[in-house]
Amino acid sequence: MRATYIYGAGDVRVITAPDPTLVEGTDAIVRITRACVCGSDLHPFHSMKADADGRPIGHEFIGTVEEIGNDVTSLTVGDFVIAPFSFSDGTCVFCVEGLQTSCIHGGFWGGGGVTGGQAEAVRVPYADGTLVKVPGTVDESQYAGLLSLSDVYGTGWHAAHQARITAGQTVTVIGDGAVGLLAVLSAKQMGAERIILMGRHTARTDLGRAFGATDVVAERGEEGIEKVRELTGGAGSHAVLEAVGFMPAYEQALGVVRAGGVISRVGVPQYEDAPVGRRSLFGKNVTLTGGVAPVRAYIEKLLPAVLDGTVNPGLVFDQTVKLEQTPEGYISMDERTALKVMVDPT
Amino acid sequence: MRATYIYGAGDVRVITAPDPTLVEGTDAIVRITRACVCGSDLHPFHSMKADADGRPIGHEFIGTVEEIGNDVTSLTVGDFVIAPFSFSDGTCVFCVEGLQTSCIHGGFWGGGGVTGGQAEAVRVPYADGTLVKVPGTVDESQYAGLLSLSDVYGTGWHAAHQARITAGQTVTVIGDGAVGLLAVLSAKQMGAERIILMGRHTARTDLGRAFGATDVVAERGEEGIEKVRELTGGAGSHAVLEAVGFMPAYEQALGVVRAGGVISRVGVPQYEDAPVGRRSLFGKNVTLTGGVAPVRAYIEKLLPAVLDGTVNPGLVFDQTVKLEQTPEGYISMDERTALKVMVDPT
Repeated sequence: MRATYIYGAGDVRVITAPDPTLVEGTDAIVRITRACVCGSDLHPFHSMKADADGRPIGHEFIGTVEEIGNDVTSLTVGDFVIAPFSFSDGTCVFCVEGLQTSCIHGGFWGGGGVTGGQAEAVRVPYADGTLVKVPGTVDESQYAGLLSLSDVYGTGWHAAHQARITAGQTVTVIGDGAVGLLAVLSAKQMGAERIILMGRHTARTDLGRAFGATDVVAERGEEGIEKVRELTGGAGSHAVLEAVGFMPAYEQALGVVRAGGVISRVGVPQYEDAPVGRRSLFGKNVTLTGGVAPVRAYIEKLLPAVLDGTVNPGLVFDQTVKLEQTPEGYISMDERTALKVMVDPT
Repeated sequence: MRATYIYGAGDVRVITAPDPTLVEGTDAIVRITRACVCGSDLHPFHSMKADADGRPIGHEFIGTVEEIGNDVTSLTVGDFVIAPFSFSDGTCVFCVEGLQTSCIHGGFWGGGGVTGGQAEAVRVPYADGTLVKVPGTVDESQYAGLLSLSDVYGTGWHAAHQARITAGQTVTVIGDGAVGLLAVLSAKQMGAERIILMGRHTARTDLGRAFGATDVVAERGEEGIEKVRELTGGAGSHAVLEAVGFMPAYEQALGVVRAGGVISRVGVPQYEDAPVGRRSLFGKNVTLTGGVAPVRAYIEKLLPAVLDGTVNPGLVFDQTVKLEQTPEGYISMDERTALKVMVDPT
């Protein structure tokens, strides 16, 4: 099959790789209908050390079950499925609690003998625990929405969910990437009254407004903080959803959060240490939450409104490339000429 | 009147200071029945730069209302009252939300023209908002329990409350000071099934067992973490209540917290930066919460069980000194010959 591998910073190639085969009885082989490029794929695209062997990449996909192992009970060949960005057994203590990203037997696509999603097909470990079957017949117009459930919508939802947003609150979202915009949508669905989106790309913030943002703040740093404080009567925001992952975004979150409020992070932190003491979190009783989103926990819940068109999270996809053009998709994402690039391996 | 002032590290003196007088119509003058020395008083006792003027100290007290300003409506001369460790107007947006430590007009004892609690009397700003009247007649046997509501019990409760402890959970408490022990009591009241107390002073951990600790781990650092992990079947603790404030305690909390769990801090952090990235909080979806406890929010709720003897938080007081001996009380606390020292200015 053809599959995308990364060999180092800036070096993404589509190569011929072995077809995936069943290894464990709990595996399934999925023929991929659509995949996509993630903002987090840009981290190795920026900084991965050169590796002559390369490694498979891509962790978001939808597709059709092509083969199942003997121990798979909930899926049938031909089922249309959504894969979350990590696989999980569905039965361990963490899976049962809805924290599938901490699954005792789970892992991430593209490592440990499991290949990536930007490919024609993939072996899915723990298929019963990992995959979610989409009921009914799926047509192409639904692909974008379903694919968003693989990562970005569930991740945006996780940010809002962990912040425990309640009706009437003021929420600030930092970052106008796909996750930030879907955090706006999620906050809106949870009843946030005022949603301030901090982002500077008009095409993106316009989509943010369509998803429910009531205000857009293009300024960054101290100036941006000042703007949000003005908009909140000086008090700050009950919840801050941080969908970037760089230190300036964390500092911005500290600046705009209300005393007693919550900073919920879903942008993978590109730092380890950060201010948490008396002058930052402690003195104001600010809660810091979030993490690697267990999107598997949210797919069934979010799916009906996607299928019936109540929400349209698939609008974050603004470019589609064929599998062979995946490297160009990375460049579009990196240069921000695309918000989110869908990959069509069919 | 006689009052305690601190002049620098190790230099606590009881001096003759002006009698407090009403300044604002919302003030009350309280004649102090009992005060005490707090673990956090030891921070300036260790490190305060010498100051020839000194500053009043002490932030926990119970007493009798001696005089009220014209605008005080809920209190009468002669009322027996509990003062929380910060004063607050009771009407601002943060007070209404139960975050009185962020009161717009509030502040802390011993600064800005407000004197301290280790004294014969004190002017209480915003008396209606700050003080809680104890119903009925109070006798001396109740002083310790009531005084614990001024800070340590409410602070321990805040740790557990912010961790949102629910029935059946495993909770680890780091620190066997008064706040840690009362965090044990609070966790027990909230239904925690297993309460692991990390502390090494047997007299204190024995009291912790009396308050509800099911296990005591005397080891620290990696060894202590290993012990707690063993006790929790390798998974770690749903909630970790950190009542120390030094970096090793934070690191211990990171080591024992379960994926998806909560670290709730009430020990004032003696650091500003700490690990919060992928390897510490983010990868495991650990929530970091807590802060300067708004004990005022909890006094009414906790008071009935203290008055009727259902709980006995006053057991943390194991030494009483007369006001003139307050400096010796600091030494007892510092040398850990006392768990918590009560001060009797009568």
